[in-house]
Amino acid sequence: MPQEHIKDQLAKGTWLTYRPEIKIMDCTIRDGGLINDHQFDDGFVSAVYRACLAAGIDAMEFGYKADKKIVAPGKCGAWKFCDEDTLRRIVGDNPTDLKISVMTDAERTDYHTDVLPKEQSVIDIVRVATYIHQIPTALDMIKDAADKGYRVTANLMAISAIQERELEEALAILADTPICALYIVDSYGSYYSEQIRDITHMFMRAVEGKGIEVGIHAHNNQMLAYANTLEALIIGANRLDATINGMGRGAGNCPLELLLGFLKNPKFQLRPVLECIRDHFVPLEKSGVMEWGYRIPYMLTGQMNMHPRTAIAMREGANPDDYVAFYDQVIEEES
Amino acid sequence: MPQEHIKDQLAKGTWLTYRPEIKIMDCTIRDGGLINDHQFDDGFVSAVYRACLAAGIDAMEFGYKADKKIVAPGKCGAWKFCDEDTLRRIVGDNPTDLKISVMTDAERTDYHTDVLPKEQSVIDIVRVATYIHQIPTALDMIKDAADKGYRVTANLMAISAIQERELEEALAILADTPICALYIVDSYGSYYSEQIRDITHMFMRAVEGKGIEVGIHAHNNQMLAYANTLEALIIGANRLDATINGMGRGAGNCPLELLLGFLKNPKFQLRPVLECIRDHFVPLEKSGVMEWGYRIPYMLTGQMNMHPRTAIAMREGANPDDYVAFYDQVIEEES
Repeated sequence: MPQEHIKDQLAKGTWLTYRPEIKIMDCTIRDGGLINDHQFDDGFVSAVYRACLAAGIDAMEFGYKADKKIVAPGKCGAWKFCDEDTLRRIVGDNPTDLKISVMTDAERTDYHTDVLPKEQSVIDIVRVATYIHQIPTALDMIKDAADKGYRVTANLMAISAIQERELEEALAILADTPICALYIVDSYGSYYSEQIRDITHMFMRAVEGKGIEVGIHAHNNQMLAYANTLEALIIGANRLDATINGMGRGAGNCPLELLLGFLKNPKFQLRPVLECIRDHFVPLEKSGVMEWGYRIPYMLTGQMNMHPRTAIAMREGANPDDYVAFYDQVIEEES
Repeated sequence: MPQEHIKDQLAKGTWLTYRPEIKIMDCTIRDGGLINDHQFDDGFVSAVYRACLAAGIDAMEFGYKADKKIVAPGKCGAWKFCDEDTLRRIVGDNPTDLKISVMTDAERTDYHTDVLPKEQSVIDIVRVATYIHQIPTALDMIKDAADKGYRVTANLMAISAIQERELEEALAILADTPICALYIVDSYGSYYSEQIRDITHMFMRAVEGKGIEVGIHAHNNQMLAYANTLEALIIGANRLDATINGMGRGAGNCPLELLLGFLKNPKFQLRPVLECIRDHFVPLEKSGVMEWGYRIPYMLTGQMNMHPRTAIAMREGANPDDYVAFYDQVIEEES
């Protein structure tokens, strides 16, 4: 038994070893874009790209492939659409090991038109984001992107609002598609680590023997994005989403700098991320133009397993610090 | 076996039940006092006291009993000493269920003189804080306070810097004293949840059958104070330290509002804590007079298992946002 234990530890990675299978995707520009309608200037996006390259990050997600018939291009920045020429302004032909990712939202993407054949694109990975009721559409999107030559992932959103039996069924369906990874997405930031353990086990069972990795995308509403990412990784999730400085909608995401401090793979470098934060994120945060990170209204929606939209609206409203009024409001809505 | 499992779950508390043995100590004024040399005005201390009462918190720690021969009273606020008349200005005779706690630091407390016999004091709990090399002194302090009629706890600091064999020995010694609780203190905020699990098990074994509870005092250097507090509580720690808004030295502590959102005991109320944050903590934070909470320099000392003092000095210095220079400095000091 002790030998089994050691074998198990080595396979999982220990304090002294590491799991080379673990790959990090930086989602700073994609999830951060949900704060500012994807209106980052090229200098900022380029700084994040260079930081990811220098830090040894495996993949970087730039934004969405939104349907221009649904979202008017004038209403959002270029990273809502990630046109080929937009991406190439930053990455050229991307002659690097860093994979380029975009997200395609089910029912909000004209994927037949806007997802080009792989040979015409600098994009490597298409991540199909879907709510459970959109899975039929998502299945077609997955097939379309895989047929076009991309690595494809399925990101099942808001799983904390799904009943266990339906979730099991959804996972079984998604695990039978040509995806390379299936992501746990804690959209409401409502999971505790104990729950993340159970869910990761459930996802691992669903993909067993299929050559599909489990991923996690955590939100920081309850200050657990990093803790929950570690829990999933310990159980066996090998695809980890993180963002520089934790930037992301509402309470934000798992901070990349924390994750790099934990992972032992020598290919990862913390210093370039700190440099990027100092030079680009600190000035941005101080400017007050964008707000992200743990705050009490997000905590409340996380605790109540609600979408953070009411908390975001409250922070943008006339009384951003009246936590009591917001608490009374969400309690009222619950009852 | 399934029945054992259910029995175990009920004993530990589940999502639907709760463990009435769990008690929370609010340490806002004590740990927060490390930021401002304990110079809180009475209005602020009184607001925290009233919030704790209304929220159903079990105990509140006001500060230290520092030796006035070591710390000149002019150099620190009154909460560094917690004289009887100072405490009574806020709590009167404390005709409530909330227990009043003070901390006594080994080798920095004239405990024979300054810890009065219980019948002359409004204090209920004396928490003896000790580094491992101070344990002989701490043992005498524990005996002294217990003989005088107080509930006494031992808070073993900086355990992440102690070798396991020495730690086992220290716990065995402390578990043989008249304490009611033995606290895990992650002074450097350097523990991951997996480690907290092992350490909590170790503490539980040390106090088994002695009628002593295990407690935890976590720091937020790696954004894990709340996550680690939950881990310890799941394993069986029944004494939880938290602070309003996470206020505390450096990266701060486990936020009380997060913990109350998790615990199911109906005696706990979140709303009064939110009210206190809105009315007293938000203005204080905005004033810029005090800074606390997760920041990258604290993350770095946490990751390197170092005392946060260099990070605190850096944040108070000329270049509080130069994370790269600070990173280079701590790497240099390590090597």
